[in-house]
Amino acid sequence: MLTFGSSVEVRGKLVKSPHKGQGVELAAENIHVVGPCDVLAFPLKYKVHHSLEYLRELPHFRCRTNVLGALLRVRSEATAAIHSYFKENGYTHIHTPIITANDCEGAGEVFKVEPAKEEQKPKEEHHFFNIPAFLTVSGQLHLEVMSGAFTKVFTFGPTFRADNSQTRRHLAEFYMVEAELFFVDTLQDIMQVIEDLFKTVTDRVVSNCPQDAALFHKRIAPGHEAKLEKMLKNPFITMSYTEAIEILDRAGQEFTYKPAWGQDLQSEHEKHLVRHCGGIPVFVYNYPYDLKPFYMRDNEDGPRRTVAAVDLLVPEVGELFGGSLREDRVDYLQSRLRRLMLEDTYRWYVELRQFGSSPHGGFGMGFERYLQCILGVQNIKDVIPFPRFPHSCVL
Amino acid sequence: MLTFGSSVEVRGKLVKSPHKGQGVELAAENIHVVGPCDVLAFPLKYKVHHSLEYLRELPHFRCRTNVLGALLRVRSEATAAIHSYFKENGYTHIHTPIITANDCEGAGEVFKVEPAKEEQKPKEEHHFFNIPAFLTVSGQLHLEVMSGAFTKVFTFGPTFRADNSQTRRHLAEFYMVEAELFFVDTLQDIMQVIEDLFKTVTDRVVSNCPQDAALFHKRIAPGHEAKLEKMLKNPFITMSYTEAIEILDRAGQEFTYKPAWGQDLQSEHEKHLVRHCGGIPVFVYNYPYDLKPFYMRDNEDGPRRTVAAVDLLVPEVGELFGGSLREDRVDYLQSRLRRLMLEDTYRWYVELRQFGSSPHGGFGMGFERYLQCILGVQNIKDVIPFPRFPHSCVL
Repeated sequence: MLTFGSSVEVRGKLVKSPHKGQGVELAAENIHVVGPCDVLAFPLKYKVHHSLEYLRELPHFRCRTNVLGALLRVRSEATAAIHSYFKENGYTHIHTPIITANDCEGAGEVFKVEPAKEEQKPKEEHHFFNIPAFLTVSGQLHLEVMSGAFTKVFTFGPTFRADNSQTRRHLAEFYMVEAELFFVDTLQDIMQVIEDLFKTVTDRVVSNCPQDAALFHKRIAPGHEAKLEKMLKNPFITMSYTEAIEILDRAGQEFTYKPAWGQDLQSEHEKHLVRHCGGIPVFVYNYPYDLKPFYMRDNEDGPRRTVAAVDLLVPEVGELFGGSLREDRVDYLQSRLRRLMLEDTYRWYVELRQFGSSPHGGFGMGFERYLQCILGVQNIKDVIPFPRFPHSCVL
Repeated sequence: MLTFGSSVEVRGKLVKSPHKGQGVELAAENIHVVGPCDVLAFPLKYKVHHSLEYLRELPHFRCRTNVLGALLRVRSEATAAIHSYFKENGYTHIHTPIITANDCEGAGEVFKVEPAKEEQKPKEEHHFFNIPAFLTVSGQLHLEVMSGAFTKVFTFGPTFRADNSQTRRHLAEFYMVEAELFFVDTLQDIMQVIEDLFKTVTDRVVSNCPQDAALFHKRIAPGHEAKLEKMLKNPFITMSYTEAIEILDRAGQEFTYKPAWGQDLQSEHEKHLVRHCGGIPVFVYNYPYDLKPFYMRDNEDGPRRTVAAVDLLVPEVGELFGGSLREDRVDYLQSRLRRLMLEDTYRWYVELRQFGSSPHGGFGMGFERYLQCILGVQNIKDVIPFPRFPHSCVL
């Protein structure tokens, strides 16, 4: 009954191992098969290399393989390292709400939330919460509330997009690490925290999970160790959005989307910029005003020309962090909200600026993209325990 | 301009303080008002005692008060202490999914999730995920999957109930700490972890936030310090459900719901049992089979008589933890699922038992109730940054 996949209880003595690469081994005196496993029916096979695609079809068993086991241990370690980083640096952790009436990004690609049973709706009300309610796309606005009380705050929780596109970089449910800092008036302050967070957390993860990281750096993404080393050892590069467009113009490369000032950077553009920087992560800052949400601070370098926004681009995954200074001037914010006809919706947000405000800013990091970046994993579905995406919500 | 509520930047020297209760004070040389505050319009007033009810109407400002500030610092510290406890004890952290096709508790009080815009639904499909999808009520079943790979796992995330009842103990969105342990075959093992977790985390929170805890123990809930001391210093009490019913029968008290074997314990019953135990937390174990969900292990003390379930009852809040051994025997589980006509839905769950299984169990703790319990806060809406409940989803 002692087959591959069975669960066993072994009693014996821990002795010094004569084999290379392991300090000790268990000299078994008694082996008890606690849970047998029918190897013919079990979908995982001994010494067979199962592809990540095949494993995705087995959401209840894939965590028992070396690869997903290593991945989820790294994910757990990274989660702990992120919490520790913020705690050690004086941040207060905030559980920003999952269900919210706001659509922070204004993209409209949100999930709505309603009781499954009609009778759960309060009597004579159209909605359970009286107003339409959605799954959060970002905790930023709620963190801004809290930064006014605790100066430095962070959140680390699930966020959601009802985006029907299926790429190796998108999920309907994914995790974001977001931070907000009061009394901050330059983008440099934000970039410094981002770089320090990335390097400190990654150092800790790699040194706490050396074997699990090595499995990816050797087997799944050969050569990735050197790429990661380059990201960790070099100061990150900074360039303005305008410089980035100039670099793309001079690229002498045929892009599917022609780069032009005022247009979003496409994935192919991000890739070129990171290559241009020799694989070192690059901050691109000061984006066109019209590309960005209402809450970003006007740089006043022309009438509504650029805002104090910054993205960090990294090899393989492209945009990993996005941050900005927030518009803290009541008149600028109000006139922008008025043009967007959002004045009533965000009255509370304007009030934050009317009573004891300060220049402030923050950033968000996609946690799954972070794991893809440090481990070299191609598909985002392989770095989360139970991926949710269009057509799929298994278990 | 230096008014109550304004945000200021102060430069000066930190000097030894002549005043009692503070080691140092800042001898200001320069005070700059960064963000002024119109005290007449500002809804918080200097030296005025604002009630918790009034503060609930100000979700964007209440965090700036002493009470909510202290509360949220304790919440942040407790979050960190829980993550540390599990890490130090060898648990792997798992992000169990928020959107799921399962209804773990079978209560049906769930929120359904759909794209807000019709056009986000995949073409010719009725649902975005192809099947109806809901917000999670528990990560337990997903943790069971993971316990087979990592032996000890935990999750700490949001859970949801579309429960239309409004009490001081219920929210539509709240946080749960859940753990699952493989190779565990007695409820005693589960109870030991629960007691150790409660005491270790609470000790750490109280010693890391002494002033914040004192604010509650002196001002909000006078006398609570002694009650908490009693919970921390004494071994928790254990009694079977059957004994609990006998104690209630002998109570000589008029209950609104007459206690009877086979019936759920009501809030008034829980209160009596905790009083009976002198305010020491009490484990009640071995509940009637028919009261509990399909996944709990049959004790075989009669035909479908009791299951290996345990609840921890504490002063003020009642049920704080709930745990159980899981039914790991394929035949027992299958016949129970067959009777419930859930055999197809939970085929994957049965498969966990068919391939390399082990006796296992786990528990969940309501995080907001935990905060109510250690701080003595009456209303659950005051221990979460942005409460969501029927009729209310503000910000």
